[in-house]
Amino acid sequence: MTRVLLTGFEPFGGDTLNPSWESALLVAADPPEGLEVTPARLSCVFGRAAEELRAAIQDTDPELVVCLGQATGRPDLTVERVAVNIDDARIPDNAGRQPIDRPVEHGGPAAYFATLPVKACVAAVREAGIPASLSHTAGTFVCNHVFYALMHHLATQRPTTRGGFVHVPALPEQVLDQGKPALPATAVAHALRALLTAAATRGADLHTPEGITH
Amino acid sequence: MTRVLLTGFEPFGGDTLNPSWESALLVAADPPEGLEVTPARLSCVFGRAAEELRAAIQDTDPELVVCLGQATGRPDLTVERVAVNIDDARIPDNAGRQPIDRPVEHGGPAAYFATLPVKACVAAVREAGIPASLSHTAGTFVCNHVFYALMHHLATQRPTTRGGFVHVPALPEQVLDQGKPALPATAVAHALRALLTAAATRGADLHTPEGITH
Amino acid sequence: MTRVLLTGFEPFGGDTLNPSWESALLVAADPPEGLEVTPARLSCVFGRAAEELRAAIQDTDPELVVCLGQATGRPDLTVERVAVNIDDARIPDNAGRQPIDRPVEHGGPAAYFATLPVKACVAAVREAGIPASLSHTAGTFVCNHVFYALMHHLATQRPTTRGGFVHVPALPEQVLDQGKPALPATAVAHALRALLTAAATRGADLHTPEGITH
Amino acid sequence: MTRVLLTGFEPFGGDTLNPSWESALLVAADPPEGLEVTPARLSCVFGRAAEELRAAIQDTDPELVVCLGQATGRPDLTVERVAVNIDDARIPDNAGRQPIDRPVEHGGPAAYFATLPVKACVAAVREAGIPASLSHTAGTFVCNHVFYALMHHLATQRPTTRGGFVHVPALPEQVLDQGKPALPATAVAHALRALLTAAATRGADLHTPEGITH
Repeated sequence: MTRVLLTGFEPFGGDTLNPSWESALLVAADPPEGLEVTPARLSCVFGRAAEELRAAIQDTDPELVVCLGQATGRPDLTVERVAVNIDDARIPDNAGRQPIDRPVEHGGPAAYFATLPVKACVAAVREAGIPASLSHTAGTFVCNHVFYALMHHLATQRPTTRGGFVHVPALPEQVLDQGKPALPATAVAHALRALLTAAATRGADLHTPEGITH
Repeated sequence: MTRVLLTGFEPFGGDTLNPSWESALLVAADPPEGLEVTPARLSCVFGRAAEELRAAIQDTDPELVVCLGQATGRPDLTVERVAVNIDDARIPDNAGRQPIDRPVEHGGPAAYFATLPVKACVAAVREAGIPASLSHTAGTFVCNHVFYALMHHLATQRPTTRGGFVHVPALPEQVLDQGKPALPATAVAHALRALLTAAATRGADLHTPEGITH
Repeated sequence: MTRVLLTGFEPFGGDTLNPSWESALLVAADPPEGLEVTPARLSCVFGRAAEELRAAIQDTDPELVVCLGQATGRPDLTVERVAVNIDDARIPDNAGRQPIDRPVEHGGPAAYFATLPVKACVAAVREAGIPASLSHTAGTFVCNHVFYALMHHLATQRPTTRGGFVHVPALPEQVLDQGKPALPATAVAHALRALLTAAATRGADLHTPEGITH
Repeated sequence: MTRVLLTGFEPFGGDTLNPSWESALLVAADPPEGLEVTPARLSCVFGRAAEELRAAIQDTDPELVVCLGQATGRPDLTVERVAVNIDDARIPDNAGRQPIDRPVEHGGPAAYFATLPVKACVAAVREAGIPASLSHTAGTFVCNHVFYALMHHLATQRPTTRGGFVHVPALPEQVLDQGKPALPATAVAHALRALLTAAATRGADLHTPEGITH
């Protein structure tokens, strides 16, 4: 059994649900074969979310950590490739904090790459029948903050633990009249099971183009 | 029991599935209370699709006719408000025909409005937890062709039968790597049950703004 | 000399400029050869705009009438094909009126088609180096209201006068931080000169596909 | 006089123009007060473009280097914040090369931040009446390759020279029937003059939120 830590976020921005947490719960309740999935819910708060993540890692001693976040407006699951060392909040977090141009980690490198086989993860989701793509920016809000904090912690404390971040679309009930794409939590959970299996079992990544011209 | 005719299209444009037909089958197999739903699959062919539709109406003698079509790229269910008397095909239909600037019905009026309570239909889908909106163009391909042919037939032959057209998003498996929105057929079927119930039971439409500035 | 009436709108929705009026002024100040272009500025008010339009037609006795409107979010000039007999305002007009589901003209047909050679107009703009396309909905706000009122007036009072409606993108200065497309008024005026020349001089329209699948 | 090196790219992907080079030429021909602007045209080829850039830097000994690239589909000028150490080409470059998941610089850090006052640059463009925003990914094609090579060269060889990358929209004539946003080269050049002045004269950056949630 591979020990997997799968985190989602609490709702933010006035919503009562967060698809990242809803789908994490569904996966943990019915995990893919060979994986033991522990869910953890993170606050949508700069600093606190990173502390909660590190505590969950300490508690569960995972071999694989995948953090999930909500990306309203994106139509598909997006596997993030790069975490950058910037907090630049367009809106306040759930504690009312709005950092501007501050590093996630003072003295940390400008960026980390995910240590998941990101292209194999994208391919696995598509093979499961759900749209997916690679993303080259996780933003500069709490999602990127957690992603960077994760990669910094793993790089400095647990170099053999794989880690990465996946953005998931809004839930249908969150965008009823907004003209924005959505996927039900069951479809996202189905996709995540395939992604976690690929992330846990693949060695080298696929050698396929998933880049973007800009 | 209200007799409902619910049509979908065969696949087109190289696809092997059409979400309009997949979801019509699901609704017919498990119809909402009080409705008897007969599904009919239409060819994606100018002229022939309209003939098939009129034959299905003759066979089922419906009180309500809702035709469905696939709208890849739209994120939500869109209830069409206006059918226009133009065939203008950007791509050939499934029989290789590509009419340009020809009327659907020679001598017919420029347009018909749907006789569904379109805003109540939109509201019912949203209440069922699925995104929906009103649309003011059904295009100029086979979807609009069938919609116009339906409304012309009802206006001239069956003035008490309500009719309309609903576009549904692509299925997830149709847009795996396309960065386009999608909804599973089960979610669409769930939405359509609520829509058909509203269409069958509502008298006057809702008096709410759903217009667009352009 | 062909007498052309070219209308634009006053600003609305909090803006201080309207690209439709700015570009109409530029065209009238430097009209294409063979055309005498009279500009008229319409209120962004249901009812009043249509009255102002009919008064301007009476004053100028035009052979061609093209009304312009602002379409923030559209990237190119869009030549409208269909005017529908619905007022359905999502936001109040400049007089605070917000009609919902009212006809533009009681007893009028559901729709009129533009009597411009719409595809030749699109082609002429592109040949002038500016992006353009055909549109199948002018919305349900004051733009469509004026378009429908124009076509109804011409159909019933001046059947030999050609008429149509063109939406133009926002000005760059209107969308500085909005992530929306824009074109400068000079580029729009350049495009409109080509369009008016085509509209005034072409007989039959081009026989090219410009339709949409949905 | 501040010595500025302003680079653009040759056309690629079948185009005959590249807005980055067209606008660079316009700026160099009529530079802003106090700046001496040398334009340089780079090949759209991995490796070769970086060599050409370093040679141009050697030739001109600039105090400020701004590289421009074409971003078809983006509506505004986008000032890039982060260059990543990945080449991942979705399409072949102009020499037919298509590197996948190779570092721009072996042993280089995962990313560099631009050393322009990026938010002041965005603000300056907006003040000049042209839409602009901050971007958090320059892609993984030749644009990002040049951006990363620039920042690596400056960091290791010329630490006091400021450098950055700006993506510009397509030209109108490139997207005539594509439904994509565009800006004329004259508008882009006008924006770039304001940007270069800000980049050359501002000390600390503005402390304003320009981040993104994802």
